Amino acid sequence: MNTAQPGALDDVIAWRDGHIVALDQTVLPHELRLLDITTVDGLVDAIVRLAVRGAPVLGVAGALGVALAVRQAGRAGWDAARLGTEVKRIADARPTAVNLRREVAATAAVIPQGAAAVEAAASAVRDDTIAVSRQISERGARYLMESAGDVPLKIHTHCNTGTLACLGWGTALGVVRALRDAGALAHVIVDETRPLLQGSRLTCWELGQLGIEHYLACDGAAPFMISQGMADAVVVGADRVAANGDVANKIGTYSLALAARQAGIPFLVAVPESTIDDATERGDLIPLEQRPAEEITRVLGVPAAPAGTRALNYAFDVTPAELVTAIVTENRLIFPGESS
Amino acid sequence: MNTAQPGALDDVIAWRDGHIVALDQTVLPHELRLLDITTVDGLVDAIVRLAVRGAPVLGVAGALGVALAVRQAGRAGWDAARLGTEVKRIADARPTAVNLRREVAATAAVIPQGAAAVEAAASAVRDDTIAVSRQISERGARYLMESAGDVPLKIHTHCNTGTLACLGWGTALGVVRALRDAGALAHVIVDETRPLLQGSRLTCWELGQLGIEHYLACDGAAPFMISQGMADAVVVGADRVAANGDVANKIGTYSLALAARQAGIPFLVAVPESTIDDATERGDLIPLEQRPAEEITRVLGVPAAPAGTRALNYAFDVTPAELVTAIVTENRLIFPGESS
Repeated sequence: MNTAQPGALDDVIAWRDGHIVALDQTVLPHELRLLDITTVDGLVDAIVRLAVRGAPVLGVAGALGVALAVRQAGRAGWDAARLGTEVKRIADARPTAVNLRREVAATAAVIPQGAAAVEAAASAVRDDTIAVSRQISERGARYLMESAGDVPLKIHTHCNTGTLACLGWGTALGVVRALRDAGALAHVIVDETRPLLQGSRLTCWELGQLGIEHYLACDGAAPFMISQGMADAVVVGADRVAANGDVANKIGTYSLALAARQAGIPFLVAVPESTIDDATERGDLIPLEQRPAEEITRVLGVPAAPAGTRALNYAFDVTPAELVTAIVTENRLIFPGESS
Repeated sequence: MNTAQPGALDDVIAWRDGHIVALDQTVLPHELRLLDITTVDGLVDAIVRLAVRGAPVLGVAGALGVALAVRQAGRAGWDAARLGTEVKRIADARPTAVNLRREVAATAAVIPQGAAAVEAAASAVRDDTIAVSRQISERGARYLMESAGDVPLKIHTHCNTGTLACLGWGTALGVVRALRDAGALAHVIVDETRPLLQGSRLTCWELGQLGIEHYLACDGAAPFMISQGMADAVVVGADRVAANGDVANKIGTYSLALAARQAGIPFLVAVPESTIDDATERGDLIPLEQRPAEEITRVLGVPAAPAGTRALNYAFDVTPAELVTAIVTENRLIFPGESS
């Protein structure tokens, strides 16, 4: 049963009464379950099992997580070394999104100033994430209205990049929302995004809440649908952008970029500046998370393959810069393909 | 529970005691259920719900279906016009695979010679399908051993193209089997093949029965895995090949062909000559079946998307000839990309 209430999206992730509250994204869209996360163990578990997910939300989770660790250190009498170890566990909970370790590091730098300063810094990360998403959304929509053909535009997107992933309006889905508000959106085609079906479960739910016309499709169908003129642009988010413009994002993104180039339509990546990792020169240097085989051999808990089947479960792929038409951030447009 | 027995694959589809017996492929790999199909209604239902599936098996089903219709006409007192109507219902049960309507037409041409002649003709179609699959398999394996790099080869495949789909050894999966028998196979990567998961359910089961090393992957991951050197060749079957070499096959095939070209590896299509439709000039003239949204919005019976979500469910795509390295049949190798 869908128990959505208007304010539900405010609780994607927040700091309340000295701990973290977060929507459990694994049970959406069928249930709105709020998690009270009071320990580092609880936060790491929520991140690993993807109850808390999405690159910008992981950044906020990292910042709030440092505040949580400082509180727990006070209760449990941890010394500085132990606190450092616990903070590092948060940073390492998932390897691909740069936002998580970046915001953990930035917030941990405030620890010497005391718990109140850490909590203020973490809350500022959250507020900033919301403000940034709006700027990305509007700049991305303006770019597409100028470059992707006659409006209204048909947009193809992947995974979940809306409020649930990013707070605020989101990144790629924020661009969709800004297009809709400008009267420039025809409809959205959403990849189901196997193995964890974030497109089916989360993006369709968010678009339904927003009243935006959308159609679900299988990931393998997307390149063919693009080849048939069913999209005017592909818009995705990213978990990390290397210094050369290579883009690590949810598995399946590379195939969309190949199809977009073949079809001659823009492939737009919408990210906060914090997702651009100048310290990582190229995409092949980005660590790509591999997740358990059971996410593929079972679907929504039901066995699909024979018992004992082995699977290769790459959670992310890398799209080379030469296939990326533009990257839009809160500050600028970057055209990585042009320099290659 | 997997109740496989050694002889189970003999019952994929056969004529027994005046009716059709067929394995219900919708309940594999968890159950081996044999269907007794005694009426045209029963056969059309089995084809539409994919209990009987795979282009070559559909050809056999069409031939045996004409024999079944003749038997039913005798019992029910149908006149020639009614028999013709019922035979056409079988031919029209699915639009994309050319084998179905081709073998229905060929077998129906024997009707004037009487029921025994029809049954003999239908059985000959089945025997021929089995013999042809072995020839395709061995020619395809020889081609790859000569052209796809150093053995042993890593093969990427899609959907299900083995005994379950084709009788005998299969087409693409027959090539895999012939490579294994020649000591030239490293392992196989199998796309799960959403929405109906024929890769997870059927191909992994067949490869397990054959003792061939295999790994399951999500459809959206396949192009990236190919880009990372994880395949030496892509081998698929087809539901129809147009006269110009455009290939209609299970949705997701086009994305593999794009990725294979980008990676510089062969994209091989393994089909019987009967799948080549010289009457259809180009791929854009092949009718592509669209199936119910529920196949995407629900997975293995479990709701994935919010209630009311609309989906676009193209069951097949068309890969243009220019992306096809070679087509292998029981008689020859065709290189459609070279003429474009």
